[in-house]
Amino acid sequence: MRILGIDPGSHATGYGVIERDGSRVAHVAHGTVRPPRGAELPARLGSIHDALEEIFALHRPDVAVVERIFAGASARSALVLGHARGVALVVAFRAGVPIHEYSPAELKQAVVGTGAADKRQVQLMVRRLLGLVRVPANDAADALAAAICHAHAGRLSALAPRIGRRSARGRSGASRVVVRRAR
Amino acid sequence: MRILGIDPGSHATGYGVIERDGSRVAHVAHGTVRPPRGAELPARLGSIHDALEEIFALHRPDVAVVERIFAGASARSALVLGHARGVALVVAFRAGVPIHEYSPAELKQAVVGTGAADKRQVQLMVRRLLGLVRVPANDAADALAAAICHAHAGRLSALAPRIGRRSARGRSGASRVVVRRAR
Repeated sequence: MRILGIDPGSHATGYGVIERDGSRVAHVAHGTVRPPRGAELPARLGSIHDALEEIFALHRPDVAVVERIFAGASARSALVLGHARGVALVVAFRAGVPIHEYSPAELKQAVVGTGAADKRQVQLMVRRLLGLVRVPANDAADALAAAICHAHAGRLSALAPRIGRRSARGRSGASRVVVRRAR
Repeated sequence: MRILGIDPGSHATGYGVIERDGSRVAHVAHGTVRPPRGAELPARLGSIHDALEEIFALHRPDVAVVERIFAGASARSALVLGHARGVALVVAFRAGVPIHEYSPAELKQAVVGTGAADKRQVQLMVRRLLGLVRVPANDAADALAAAICHAHAGRLSALAPRIGRRSARGRSGASRVVVRRAR
């Protein structure tokens, strides 16, 4: 299963692609989409849209994972962040893949082992878990962490005892299938 | 000049198309995009995306106008609204038309004559200005008001004395060309 994690932002959108094979995860690609500096918001969103479309076409993920945002800082920053996240969700939806969302605490818990980890700890653990030569940049590390979190949720789900008629994916507490586009 | 106004929202996105010919404005079309009730956010955004793409293809506007949002109510509502607005901006940007933004007070000022007008006053004035048989629904009325505001700004601009080397469009105080997509 190929998993694409996305960390949306209007100035920098991180992405990370991994493959899960049983209990193993392998790094495929990661990077950061940086719209032209000084561009207005619609142009930045257009740049993110086109880049994400290319990433979906190139890596053909089976599933997309996007961090769930809790409007923290201010309404103003939540508004701008919402613009970028809306673009990421619509590209994923139109690509026809299931979209999963995890909270920041769930991502940190899955990668570092504690929901209170800081950004640097996430970067270092992502590097270690995927055997990367370099520490990935902040946004790409968060995107890879999202992908790892989903791989982990899926693995836990596969190990969990079967309960009732719910599917393996449905049984994972942390994993939430938001939607699959009707074809 | 054909003007498309958009009032983005994740549950209801209003749109309104008018034509400006000199000092006259004429109604072309308006409506509300309502994603399926109960659909998750990515599906709703996908529905808005596809509907707006169709509206651009059908009406071929020369310019798009989107209300500028000031994160008012809460960070939570600003975040969700940002998602829908991001989708609207990216569709407009990809359609290759200039995008203008006006504040809610500018829209009300242009249509009702006071920035403190309420929603009902906007609906009634939009109906009167465009000679509509019925009062347009809330979101569509706001979208039509955005289009009328831009038509008005353009007319004021055309009447204004030429100052320096700036273009007629650039001289309009209320009109802001945000971006034109590089082709």
